[in-house]
Amino acid sequence: MKIIRSPAAMTAWSEGLRREGVTIGLVPTMGALHEGHRSLIREARLQCDALVVSIFVNPTQFGPREDLTKYPRPLSHDRAICRQEGVDVCFEPTVEAMYPAGFQTTVIVPAVARRWEGEARPHHFAGVATVVTKLFGMVRPHRALFGQKDFQQSVLVQQLVKDLNLGVDIVVRPTVREQDGLAMSSRNIYLSPNERRRAVVLYKGLQTGAKVIRTGETDARIIRSAMTQVIKGEPTLTIDYLAVCDPTTLEPLSTVRPKTLLLGAARIGTVRLIDNLAVSAIQGQRNY
Amino acid sequence: MKIIRSPAAMTAWSEGLRREGVTIGLVPTMGALHEGHRSLIREARLQCDALVVSIFVNPTQFGPREDLTKYPRPLSHDRAICRQEGVDVCFEPTVEAMYPAGFQTTVIVPAVARRWEGEARPHHFAGVATVVTKLFGMVRPHRALFGQKDFQQSVLVQQLVKDLNLGVDIVVRPTVREQDGLAMSSRNIYLSPNERRRAVVLYKGLQTGAKVIRTGETDARIIRSAMTQVIKGEPTLTIDYLAVCDPTTLEPLSTVRPKTLLLGAARIGTVRLIDNLAVSAIQGQRNY
Repeated sequence: MKIIRSPAAMTAWSEGLRREGVTIGLVPTMGALHEGHRSLIREARLQCDALVVSIFVNPTQFGPREDLTKYPRPLSHDRAICRQEGVDVCFEPTVEAMYPAGFQTTVIVPAVARRWEGEARPHHFAGVATVVTKLFGMVRPHRALFGQKDFQQSVLVQQLVKDLNLGVDIVVRPTVREQDGLAMSSRNIYLSPNERRRAVVLYKGLQTGAKVIRTGETDARIIRSAMTQVIKGEPTLTIDYLAVCDPTTLEPLSTVRPKTLLLGAARIGTVRLIDNLAVSAIQGQRNY
Repeated sequence: MKIIRSPAAMTAWSEGLRREGVTIGLVPTMGALHEGHRSLIREARLQCDALVVSIFVNPTQFGPREDLTKYPRPLSHDRAICRQEGVDVCFEPTVEAMYPAGFQTTVIVPAVARRWEGEARPHHFAGVATVVTKLFGMVRPHRALFGQKDFQQSVLVQQLVKDLNLGVDIVVRPTVREQDGLAMSSRNIYLSPNERRRAVVLYKGLQTGAKVIRTGETDARIIRSAMTQVIKGEPTLTIDYLAVCDPTTLEPLSTVRPKTLLLGAARIGTVRLIDNLAVSAIQGQRNY
């Protein structure tokens, strides 16, 4: 496995392969790789001839009171996973190479970024959209893979690629979960054993919402209140938002549609959890 | 010459050539081609193996009270020029293909866009930065050529390409002028014969500024007032701004540097003129 730190060297590597007709896959990560990343890497390994994993803890997508400095950076562990999974290049640009003096350009995707995570984290998605555009410029992948856990991010990246004609095929893969159902996240290591046990209640709430939809309920208020009740049953969790929304626009729905997304965020101690479930409601609907 | 309207067909054409190692040049235009464009096309023809001229009157870079609807669109004349100059592809995307329903992503280059044209035309540079990013995505050129007449635009494009790692080599070519010195512009056709004679005074003012610098003057206030005096001598012109600034940051200078840019905009009737002169002050400086 090659370790490349220079953006110019990364581009040169990719351009050389592109001229030979090789299909290049990219899994962009902030490191601290877990089973969710591993599943993206394995899928990319199947779908692409050459595989790049980028590791870059992007400062511009963290808020001023967020966990940028304490975000885990277990680099040798991450490289070992990449080696195990047959990654060709581990791309590790420095903050200085990514944002040299004078850097100023920002990519915004305003409608997708407005709600949910965008409200909770005001500059987060501008940081994500900009760094993804830059990573695509540096790596020149044919295809890039993202996890469904960050659902709004995956919608944003798809919109961005379409709007700016970046020509990268975006693949979104299902959330990988712990045995009890908690969505895998690099931030789960912040949870105390006690918080860790309780954290799964966010997912339980979403599951309840999905169950209510499958019984035929179509009123979003009733679905939301069922989810809320489950999560409020665990008082250590504070709900940030719980939404029944359209999976393409992320706008809230008043009535469930054939494809509906349940989206949630909650805090436990100092940790913020996000999760989502996509539900196909057709089978369960009362009036078909 | 091929005429391509579909962005997907444009990208396919370019990607095919890129795989063969062909160097692709792009001259992005809004049509209404004049000698300034012709000079860019000729230079591109020399520097590149395959040459694309894009013609797209970009609505997002016009303000609500600007000349979008009446902007000249002499398409067959433009195509004839492209044919004469050996252009390989005339790329003519539609507004609908450029901005389909749901389009929302915007690229901003805030520090470069803040002053001068950015102040006079608030959303202009976001429109330019976004459409240039899109055109580069669609055409995938190795090199793109821009005219010095739109100096701030050329600085913006260079910053954008660097910041987003777009990997396009930006070439800026000197302003082409009418016999009396007026900078060529597609908007000059709006000038009445009387206005046309007087319009050259903007350039005369900039020339006076350059002359004053070459006599050894380094005080920007004195240089600006010399330029202002010349232009105010023609009362049909209204000055929008006149600046002595750094050619890379476009920030105003109080003291002339070895490389200094004189930048100006003025209105005559309903027409807005912009122009600039880059001055090397080293030879003329008093205290060397």
